[in-house]
This record gives sequence, C-alpha cells and structure tokens, in this order.
Amino acid sequence: MRMYDLIRKKRDGGQLTEEEIRFLIEGFTKGDIPDYQMAAFTMAVYFRGMTDEETAALTLAMAHSGDVVDLSAIEGIKVDKHSTGGVGDTTTLVLAPLVAACGAPVAKMSGRALGHTGGTLDKLESIPGFNVYMTPEQFVESVNRIKVAVIGQTASIAPADGKWYKLRDVTATVENVSLIAASIMSKKLAAGADALVLDVKTGQGAFLKKFEDTVKLAETMVSIGRRAGRKTVALITDMNQPLGRAIGNALEVKEAIETLRGHGPEDVAELVPAPGTQMPLPARAADDAARPPRTAHDAAACGRPPEKFREMIRNQGGDPRVVDDPSLLPTAPVRTVVEAPRSGWVDGIDAYALGDVTMLLGAGRRKQDDVVDHAVGLVLHAKLGSKVEEGDVLCEVHARRPEDVAAVEERIRNAFSIGPRAPEPRPLVLRRIGD
Amino acid sequence: MRMYDLIRKKRDGGQLTEEEIRFLIEGFTKGDIPDYQMAAFTMAVYFRGMTDEETAALTLAMAHSGDVVDLSAIEGIKVDKHSTGGVGDTTTLVLAPLVAACGAPVAKMSGRALGHTGGTLDKLESIPGFNVYMTPEQFVESVNRIKVAVIGQTASIAPADGKWYKLRDVTATVENVSLIAASIMSKKLAAGADALVLDVKTGQGAFLKKFEDTVKLAETMVSIGRRAGRKTVALITDMNQPLGRAIGNALEVKEAIETLRGHGPEDVAELVPAPGTQMPLPARAADDAARPPRTAHDAAACGRPPEKFREMIRNQGGDPRVVDDPSLLPTAPVRTVVEAPRSGWVDGIDAYALGDVTMLLGAGRRKQDDVVDHAVGLVLHAKLGSKVEEGDVLCEVHARRPEDVAAVEERIRNAFSIGPRAPEPRPLVLRRIGD
Repeated sequence: MRMYDLIRKKRDGGQLTEEEIRFLIEGFTKGDIPDYQMAAFTMAVYFRGMTDEETAALTLAMAHSGDVVDLSAIEGIKVDKHSTGGVGDTTTLVLAPLVAACGAPVAKMSGRALGHTGGTLDKLESIPGFNVYMTPEQFVESVNRIKVAVIGQTASIAPADGKWYKLRDVTATVENVSLIAASIMSKKLAAGADALVLDVKTGQGAFLKKFEDTVKLAETMVSIGRRAGRKTVALITDMNQPLGRAIGNALEVKEAIETLRGHGPEDVAELVPAPGTQMPLPARAADDAARPPRTAHDAAACGRPPEKFREMIRNQGGDPRVVDDPSLLPTAPVRTVVEAPRSGWVDGIDAYALGDVTMLLGAGRRKQDDVVDHAVGLVLHAKLGSKVEEGDVLCEVHARRPEDVAAVEERIRNAFSIGPRAPEPRPLVLRRIGD
Repeated sequence: MRMYDLIRKKRDGGQLTEEEIRFLIEGFTKGDIPDYQMAAFTMAVYFRGMTDEETAALTLAMAHSGDVVDLSAIEGIKVDKHSTGGVGDTTTLVLAPLVAACGAPVAKMSGRALGHTGGTLDKLESIPGFNVYMTPEQFVESVNRIKVAVIGQTASIAPADGKWYKLRDVTATVENVSLIAASIMSKKLAAGADALVLDVKTGQGAFLKKFEDTVKLAETMVSIGRRAGRKTVALITDMNQPLGRAIGNALEVKEAIETLRGHGPEDVAELVPAPGTQMPLPARAADDAARPPRTAHDAAACGRPPEKFREMIRNQGGDPRVVDDPSLLPTAPVRTVVEAPRSGWVDGIDAYALGDVTMLLGAGRRKQDDVVDHAVGLVLHAKLGSKVEEGDVLCEVHARRPEDVAAVEERIRNAFSIGPRAPEPRPLVLRRIGD
C-alpha cells in the first residue's frame, strides 16, 4: 500500500477502506508518512469529504494510535463531557464538582486554549498550585476516592490527532466536519468513558458558525459514538454571545465558583443542568442515589458542590481557599472599562471578537507554545437584551499593561451592537441529537 | 503576508495577486514555506485551478527563482524546442544537429527520463564519453562556434520548479494544466531562448491522454509565452503509439542517426520537419540563409546533418565514431523477440505500457535517483497499420538478464492489439496553436 495511491483515490472522490485508513493513521503517527503527503491528503478530504464509514474508521484508527485509557477500575458508568469550544465557557469547571457532588464519577480529560476559545486546563491552572498532570493510576485512584479529577490529555492519548491537528492548523484544513468529528471523538474514545455528552456550540462565537454545519457535526459525532458502542448525546447550544460574563482564566474560575454557590450568571445556570442532566443519567442505573440535577438550584441541593470543588482542588495540589476567597486568584494590574457609546438595547455581541480580544490581552494562545496570562480577560456588564444608557459600562477590561487595553478598546466597543429595541430572547439549548 | 492565508484563499476559490505568487515561490524556494504548506496549497490548486493571469505570474516567479540564462552573446534569434514527453521520441536528437546544419543556432537544455517517458540527456549519455554539463560560458561559446549544444538543465535554473515537481510527484498533484504549463514554461523562459516551439503529445502514451486537456495545456503555454514576450508555437502531436521504432537510450540514438542519414522510420521523418519547420523560422529574419527545412529530405539537403551530429558529439566529449558505426553504442547481452499471437492488422499499440516496460527493463527511472541502463529497450517491428501473420515478430527486446524479459513479455504482447481490419490512418500533427 502506498500513501500516493490513497491521496490519489481521495482526490478522485473514492472511498477509503478501513485497512487503508489504518495504514494512513499508523504510518502518519510513526512518521513513515511525511507531513507533506498528509497535508495533500487532508486538502483532498476538505474538497471530497468522507463518508460516515470512513469517518468512523478514521476515528477508531486515531483513538488506537496511542494509549487507550482503561477506566474499568472506576466503579459506575463513566460519563465524559466535551464542549466544542466557546468563549467564556465555564461549563466543565462547574459541572465536574457538581456532578461529582451528586455521586457520579467524573474522570475528565480537558484541553487548552487555542485561538479565540479558552481551555479548561488553563483555567484550572490559574488556581495557585493546581496540577493537571497525573499518572493513569493516580487518575483512577482519585476518581474512586473523591469522584472527580480533571486532567490534561497526555501526548500518549490519540497522538495521531495531536500531530494531525497541528498540521491542519497551518494548512487551512481545519474546517471539515469529518475531520473535526474524528479529532474530538478519537480523544474521547481513547479517554475511556462509557457515555459521552457533547456540547456543540453554534453561532458566530463558535468554531462552526452555521447552524446546519453544527447539526452535521453533532450528527457525525453521535454516529461515530454509536458505531464505537458508546452512549452518545449531543446538545446544540447557542454561542452568539459569550457564555456567562467572564472571559479569561482566573476570571472564569471566579465565575464558576459563584455558579457553584448558586450566584452565577443566568445563562450558565441555565446551561449547566442541560449537559448535567445527561451526565449522571447512565450512572443512575448503577447507583440510584446519583439523581440528575434538573436545575442549577436542584444540582446545588443534591450535594455540596463548593465543598467538592475544594476537595478536587486540594487533591490536585491547588490552593482550596480560592473557593472561599477568589481574591487569592491572580489579578491583573490594569483595570478599565468600556462604556456604551449610546443608549439602547444590546442586540448583538460578537463573541468571536471578544474571544479574540481576550487572546490578544494574553489569556489565550495564537500558537500552541504561547504562554498564557491567567489574570487578564474581560467581564461583561451587558449581555444580549440588556438595556444600556450612554456611558454605562459594557465591559470591564483586566489587562497586563495600559497599552494592551488601548490596542483592543475599539474592538471591544464594536463587539457590542446597540439598537433601538430589545432583541428576541433565544433559547440556549437549540437541539438535542441522540437519545 | 502569511502562507496560511494564501492556502485559504485558493481553497476558497480566490485569485492570488502577482505579489502573493512571488511571495509563495520565493518563500518556497528559500525554504521559508515548508513542504506541507506547499502540498496543501497545491492540492487546493488541483481543485480550484488558476486563472491565466495567475499561471503567467507563477511561471515568471518560478523562472526568476534561480539563474536566468543570458543567450544574448549568441548571434541570431535563439529558438528552443520542448516536447512534453513521449515514448521513443527522438525528435530532439534529430532536430538539434539538423537545424544547426541549416545554420540556425540551437542552444538547448534538455531533461532526463522519468516514469514511462525517456529523456534526451540519458539518450545522449549512451554515447561513450558524452558530457551534458557545461558552464554557461562554454555553452554560449559552443553554440557560437558550431551552432549547437544540448546540455542538462543545472539546478540553478528555475529551482522552484525542481523542488515543487518533486513534491507534486509524491502528493498526486502533478495532473493540473496550470502547474504543468508553469513548470515547463518557467524552465524555458529561464533558459533564455527568444522563441519556443512546443511539441505537445496527446493520446494514451502521452502525459495527458485526452485531446481537450492537451489543447488546454498547449493554449496555456502559448499564452504564458506571449505574456512573457516570447514568440511561441505549439504543435499537438499524436502519441497513441510510440514514435519511431526504438524505445531505449542507445537504441534511440541509433534510430536518430538513421534518420539523420535519411533512413529513419516514416513517422519520425514526418514529425521532425514539423517542429523543424518552426524552429529556424525566426532565425531566418536574422540570417536568410537559414532556410527552414520543409521535409526530412529537404532538411537533410540543406546541410550535412550527420557531420553536424559528429561535430556536436566531439564538442561534448563523446565518441563521434558512433555516427558511422552505431555498434560502438552500448548493447544489451540478452536479445529476444515477442511474436504475434495471431494474424491480422495491428490496430492499437499501448505506448504507455511499452514506455513502462522499457523503464522496467532498466532504461528509465521510477524514482529520480534510479540509475539508467543505456543499452536496454525495445525495437518495434510492427506499428499501427502493420499487417502481421501469426508468429511474425512484433517487437525485439534488448535486456540485461533473461528474467527481465520474462517479467515483461506478456505485457509487451498485450500492448499490441491485432484486429481483422487495417485501422484508419491518423495524422501525426493534429493541431497547431499560436503563430
């Protein structure tokens, strides 16, 4: 078998066999297939697409390109949750302690910030001392003991995906539904959970801006999950404005703590139970006491989430006092505000622009090896539907240097559209795919 | 400017500016743009194509990626000839001494065998001692003194093309008219001739099998030539059977010598004057004595081509006695024949298969660093329209080892289609593009 022939086959619209896909992924992972052949192949996939069979075979081959985590030593049905990356998305920070507080095991591997979207690992690392790396044994032991651990995906999990994503990122071949689905699902399958809840963001702050593309991605991932024998549910959720009010690592941890205490922003409180409702469900079969929370309030009631978060932080080497005193989190030296240029209703917030601005302030990464500033970010005072008067604060800016603010101030102001009427309210969870 | 954005632009069907194309080619040549980005870009070009403006800009950028030969020290209008690669194509071997014998300067850079097609340099190197490398000064001096030199393209001529071709060859992105045209024309423009005659092969022994693709390629190259201010003519010629009877290096040199003596195969004798007619034409303006030959006989009459070939060989260090005694050329130890399995008319000859078989015998290269065997090859005894009886010789096989013959015998036999009726005769020159 020759890579040349596989490139040619896909270029001409052919369907690759399972064997060919395994050859491709194994060869690429080992380095037998060079980057330039993989890049040409990937661009051909961009134009020709992949069938559901090809996508499922690709995902499995990628999942088996490295270690496959064995969670069988953890009692109960292990559920994993994945978000396709939003702006200000604190869902995992809230859900992990919350679901664990309800008695369901949370063995979660998370990712890092890239581009305009944040990453749970970077957020957690803003907690002084917090360590996102564990051995598989420590991971299993932690979840059995305290029901929760959130760790970084090691390089040995689906290494084909990591290598391929880096290549796609610099060759303009990221935006393909099959490749996105295979990338996400290969890591989830290798991470070993029995059931998956996928939070697929849609709208202009999301990775995929068009609703139909998002639906296609969600359907593709659910189809892969089922072919791989995992119970999989996808929720399509709105990302036409940032989730919650905070964007930036420590700022989002602070918001997550407020949510766990029952004082979080409305939309986070609305979204959290949605995947939360799904997460413990399979676990319920194993342990009927693990009742799914139906509302944030309900969730908070079923256990003591702030306590569970403290326990989780302590277990991973972090300073648990942040839960009671968020001022122990890193803070930015420069704080300023962006004001409304006129009165009216906020009828649009460009989440993509605000995510990008936050990255420019230093909270995220333009390239994979950029260093993240945990303190900086934005706190929104106005959200979609807010009524503002001229001069009202739209957004707080937390920055490292005054010149950093000057560079983004105008973009922040332009990210808020102010109109004469209140916009139609829109639901956060737009569709549910899978059962 | 970022390569990522250029990939994305082409991927989305955009047209690159001249400046973007220069950035692309300069960056790739210098190594600033890595192979994997170039591979992704090239696959995007495969799907999206390039406009005539883009193709012309690309060709010029590639032509200027290295040395541009200055032939101004050669008197008269310098004409170059290029063939898109056929099977058994001795045209350059014949034309170079023939046109020079007629008084027109021939300053020619040629290529090497690759895949199923042969290369003039390898053929010339089958002449004992023949050296295809010269300094630019020696090249100009030779052409001024004896009117002819055929040399290898140095690595400093259009290096972007050499580097890019290697990449395209392993990423299934060779077959794109714009890229093929730019590849050929960049070298021709850098090689410095004032006028170009392009012999564009069509049919299943050619690089491009479909007539309309060939026409498109010829038109694209003529358009590039004109935009670059060079008089350019393209002839579309039939490659539905090998040209002449010999395929293989020394065997083709022998056939070329026979043609120069007026005893060559009919089709070579027919084709040679065609580009030959064009070649000295511009030179005529400078020197009316350089009358274009209208037929091979006419051509042979206008000078003393065998003598000119001897002079050219001597000048380049080769043994000129081969012109009078071709048995001084290398010969293969194993000779056998393939016979007609039944009586009838030869109504098809798979030139591609015979070119490929010749490569397998060792006369060509599968990869760029394979070593060529100058002695081996095929000599056809039957051509399209030949009447054969069962047991008649279709083809002589000249091989290094008996097992080499065994490996290809069946393919050679299958390459000849024998039917009940004589096929319609077809012209060799199918169309002329440009003036």
